[in-house]
Formats: sequence, structure tokens, C-alpha cells
Amino acid sequence: MQSIHSKISFPFSTFNPRLLKSVPNWQRLAANVVKERIKGAITMKLDVEKLSSTSNTIYIADLGCAVGPNAFDAMQDVVHFIQQKYTLQCPQSNTTLQFLVLFNDQPSNDFNTLFTSLPRERPYYAAGVPGSFHRRLFPESSIHFVHCSYALHWLSKVPEELLDKNCGAWNKGRIHYTNAPNEVVQAYASQFAKDMEEFLCARAMEIVTGGMMTIIMPGLPNEMPYSQLAASLMYDFMASTFMDMANEGLVSEDEVDSFNLPIYTPSPAEMASVVEKNGHFSIEMLELTNPASLVDGPVDIKAWVIHVRAAMEGMFIKHFSTDIIDEMFDRLTKKLFMFTDQVESGYKDRTQLLVVLIRK
Amino acid sequence: MQSIHSKISFPFSTFNPRLLKSVPNWQRLAANVVKERIKGAITMKLDVEKLSSTSNTIYIADLGCAVGPNAFDAMQDVVHFIQQKYTLQCPQSNTTLQFLVLFNDQPSNDFNTLFTSLPRERPYYAAGVPGSFHRRLFPESSIHFVHCSYALHWLSKVPEELLDKNCGAWNKGRIHYTNAPNEVVQAYASQFAKDMEEFLCARAMEIVTGGMMTIIMPGLPNEMPYSQLAASLMYDFMASTFMDMANEGLVSEDEVDSFNLPIYTPSPAEMASVVEKNGHFSIEMLELTNPASLVDGPVDIKAWVIHVRAAMEGMFIKHFSTDIIDEMFDRLTKKLFMFTDQVESGYKDRTQLLVVLIRK
Repeated sequence: MQSIHSKISFPFSTFNPRLLKSVPNWQRLAANVVKERIKGAITMKLDVEKLSSTSNTIYIADLGCAVGPNAFDAMQDVVHFIQQKYTLQCPQSNTTLQFLVLFNDQPSNDFNTLFTSLPRERPYYAAGVPGSFHRRLFPESSIHFVHCSYALHWLSKVPEELLDKNCGAWNKGRIHYTNAPNEVVQAYASQFAKDMEEFLCARAMEIVTGGMMTIIMPGLPNEMPYSQLAASLMYDFMASTFMDMANEGLVSEDEVDSFNLPIYTPSPAEMASVVEKNGHFSIEMLELTNPASLVDGPVDIKAWVIHVRAAMEGMFIKHFSTDIIDEMFDRLTKKLFMFTDQVESGYKDRTQLLVVLIRK
Repeated sequence: MQSIHSKISFPFSTFNPRLLKSVPNWQRLAANVVKERIKGAITMKLDVEKLSSTSNTIYIADLGCAVGPNAFDAMQDVVHFIQQKYTLQCPQSNTTLQFLVLFNDQPSNDFNTLFTSLPRERPYYAAGVPGSFHRRLFPESSIHFVHCSYALHWLSKVPEELLDKNCGAWNKGRIHYTNAPNEVVQAYASQFAKDMEEFLCARAMEIVTGGMMTIIMPGLPNEMPYSQLAASLMYDFMASTFMDMANEGLVSEDEVDSFNLPIYTPSPAEMASVVEKNGHFSIEMLELTNPASLVDGPVDIKAWVIHVRAAMEGMFIKHFSTDIIDEMFDRLTKKLFMFTDQVESGYKDRTQLLVVLIRK
């Protein structure tokens, strides 16, 4: 099972953190899984001495930060690792590195909560930057390190073909590309490739030569059909629940047909391909790791649904009434309990993608 | 009359912009008064060629930004003036300067509104920085230009002596230092000097050598008693209104005695003295200008009270119930109408202080 949905970014920042109070913080756990890998990447690949040669301030961006606190943990770690690397490289230096962390998310993100939650004691100066990370956010060559955790799986929009009844990619009776015709899968894949190209071009302008970018997001093992992932079961059950409700007259079929989740899970090969095509970054690490929810043992269906709902609620609210959403999630939880065996057998290993890039 | 109260910063960022919808935007008008002076200062005194010699990005901070839109106008102007100066200094250059504007205010400021109101088309990248400007906000030597408009008259706190019944500075029956014993005035002046020293020390660390800081705030002509200002009449009437209400049993006398406005209006001589004592900045301009409300002709008492209430409401709400505040402002407006002649005769010329400093 994927722990992918405990944070939301573009294009729907109506993430509801209150829902998560009673369940384990999967995103923090997910971050812990990759923490050591990121430490290793910084130690081995980031030339901090060179980056700090013109100024002793290191500029770090966290893209898709939501409201914390996971972003604060990640930034504290990154600052710590960069400091350690600097000490390793320049043991005789009297210079103390300074850090400005730029927390980015959509303008509709709750920055007020982010700012009032900032740790009082922190090893960095903090700023918030509102805007879509598919476009430019920072001045040219002004950033040394970018971190982007559980945000890039959100597409900038639902592929337009999905809503065209005269097109093979019309996604009737589904809300995602799970078990969908090839045209639907292709529409999603094209949108992801386009979004990634925009993202990488914007970052290429902003990150200095030698600067690093770390990306954590859901990932699909190479050659594996998406439908084998446990998460795909969730989306399939959501769609069938909506269709049940449409048959009962609770919601119109048109409403369901016109709703699609703008979420994409690339394989490592696909990610490597978009990065190589872009050409501005060298790939230092690109691997699948285990997502955090695995550490909890058997699938906790209730917690899983709560995570998904917390992350996706804003998206549903734009399309369906609250009553319909409540009803759908109630039915979904019950349905998933009935199919626990099937959920358990869904592929759950190594479905978290970790990418470390260096700006050429 | 002073147009000082249409924006609020430290320590009370519960500024209520809705109240200002029906009245002229005095703060924008105030900014216009000094716009040409700031343009002149940048043209004459800011060495943009030197500032941009290590990087073509200029970092600008707006301290006490509130929720815009006045901050956006000011930043657009400053960026424009710096660009013009660069073209003047480097007519052959192919470099395009880039700008990152860091909008600062208290963490309790409504940054969500600020971020969703940012102009779509703007000549700068934007970030928000939460924190008190009496402390460090940015890395060392990372800022080229600081703008601080109608924010520094807010003290970081009410001087403690004012609440000590056994001390000469106990401010019984008043809410400000207008017509108060010398001990009260001194307590306010000391707090201002202390706050300014902290402010200047923090900025001295952050602003690069040759960087500029512009300050706009209410000012008191040298040698003039504070009680001669029209604004002082407002505070006196507030206090007497509260005391009337205390006599009628609507509010306790203790509540009034323990309430004081943390606002201070320095003279140019006083401001020059704190800057010189600090020693990190050279004074390039320090002058009194006419505040904007003058352009409106006779005093518009209703608009004046609305501006004051919009700016100060948050402060009153922390101390008094909403009923009491409504009642006080109703009575205050009526009282000021009865004393229109006295308000008109209050000193209103040249009560806006403009300071331009260069980091040595």
C-alpha cells in the first residue's frame, strides 16, 4: 500500500490536516525511510564548499510544503546534513553557514498555519513562497538545494481528453487510469511528462550549477501494470462506489464521468526518461524504496482511508456535495474491509520513488 | 492630522482592512507624498552597479507589510526606481536585474490574504517572512534594500513602568503619553530608543554595505510638545471617553488604567540621535513631510475614526469586550464632531517622518 496521500499540493491545497490527528503520520515515516539516503547523497555528491564560495548563505526550497510539520523535519535534516558536509570539506573554516529555507506551495495553501507552526528554535531563516512549482518561483541561479516530497504525483490538471465524449480517452465510469483503456493511460502519462518538463525547466533556471534536487513521490516498479498496486484498488473501489450511488440516484452519472483524479505514479524508467530528455540535470540516484505505511504491519484500512480523504477532500469538494463525499467514504471504508484480503495482496513493496538530481 | 493608522504591524496584527473599504486610502496617499523623495534617494545615493556586482538579483524587504495592497504599490515603485538607476549607471549592460521581494510582518499577520492578493503581473519574485522586525529575519548581508512604512511607531510592548502603581510612570486615567507626567513620556521614549536600537542592529547585520533603508512613520516637529498634534487629541478623547464609561459603571477603572497604546511619535532630532548612537548607518535624508490626509482638505472625522479603529481594533479586543469598544468608538466620534474646531486647530503640517539610511 502506498502512503502517498498524507500531503497535498498542486492543484488542490484544501488539504485537511485535522483528519490526520488520530492516525500515524505516514509521511513522516516515509521521510525517515529516505532520510539516510538523502544524507548519503549530500555527503557524497553535494559540493558545499563550492556552493558557499561566493556567499556563506545556502538557499533551500521545499516545494509543496503544505502546512508542516513534515516539511520542518525534512528541512531541519537537510540543513544538518549540509552543515556536516561543510565541516567535512572545510574542517579549518571559521565560517558559519547560514540557511534561508523557502517554503513553497500554492497561493491557496494555508500559509498562516505554516507560519504560526514554524519551530521557534530552528537552524534556518524561513520564508514562504506562494505559487505553482510548474512555473518559476525564484530568481535565476539563486537556489542551492530543492526538496520536493509527495507533491509531484499531483498533475497540474486533469488531462483534457478525459472529458471529451468523442475521444477514446473519455473516462466513463472511472475516476482514474486504473484498469482504463490505453488512451486514458496515455493521456495521464503525457500530462505527467509535460508537467515534469515544465517543472525541470523552471528549476534548471533557479538552481545553481552543482546544486541538488531531491524528489520523493509514489513510484511504480518498471514493467508492472498500475492495477497491481494496492492504491489502484482504492481508486477502483471509489469509482464503483460512485457508480453504485449513481444507480441509486444519489449522484448523477455525468458528475461521476466528469470527475477524474489528477494523480500519476511514474515508473523509475519513465522518470529517468523525462529527466534525460530535459537534459539539465544529472541523475545521481533514482530508486524505489519501501513506503512508510509498510512499517505498520497489516493494512490499517481505516487509517488508509483517513489519509486519502485528508489529502483529497479539497478535490472532491470542488465537484461533489459534502453529503455525497461523506457517503462515498463511508461506503468505501466498508467495501475495503470486505476486501481486506485483496487489499493485502496488492503490491506494496518498493512503491516510493526517490530521485536525487544535480544541476549540470 | 496624522494618517498614521491605516496599517498596523507589531505587536498587534489583527488589523481589520474591511473597515477601510468606504474611506480614502490614506496610506497610499501618504506613500505618494514620499514617492518622489525615495526615487530621488535611489537615483542619487544607491550604487546599484556595485550592489549587483556579485549577483544580478536584488533582494528587497518590506517590513510591516500587513496584507497589501499598499505594500505592493511601494515595492513596484522601488523595483522600478532601482531598474532605472541601473540603466543610468550601466547603459551598455545586457544584464537584466531580477528582484526578490520579502514581505515581512508578524506571524499572526494574514499572509494568506497577502499571498492571494499579490498582483499577477509584477516585476519581482515574492516571498513572505513571518517574524518581529525587532529581531533578525534574514541571513547576514543578504538584503540590498529595506522599506518600512507606518510600522516603526508601534512599540514592541507597552513600557512596563506604566502598570506599576508605585512608580511615577503609572499612567492612571490615560491610555497614552499625551498630557502625561514626564515619567510616562520618558518611559515611552526609552522603549522607542530600545526598540530602534534592536531594529537597527538586526538590519545592520542583514543589509549589505551600501544597501539602503527607507523609513516612513509619524513624526513630531522638533521642540513641539506632543499634545499639540491633532492625533494627541484623539488619544485624550479616547481616555476621557473610557473614564466616562468607567464612571457610569460600564467598564472598570482598573481596566482603563491598565490599558496603554504602544505607539510613539519621535521627532527628527530623536530619530537622528538613535541612528547616530547605533552607528551602523549614515543618514542620507531625515525630514518631515506632510501626511496624506491633508490632501483631503478639512478633517473628515468619521474617516479618521474609521482609520484609527481599523488599525487599533486588535489591540482593544485583547483588553476590552466588543460592546465596550463599539460604545467607546461611537462616543468618540460624537465627541470629536463636537470639538471639530479644536481638531482643526491641532497641528497637522509636516507630521510624517521620512528617513533614508545607507548601511556603512
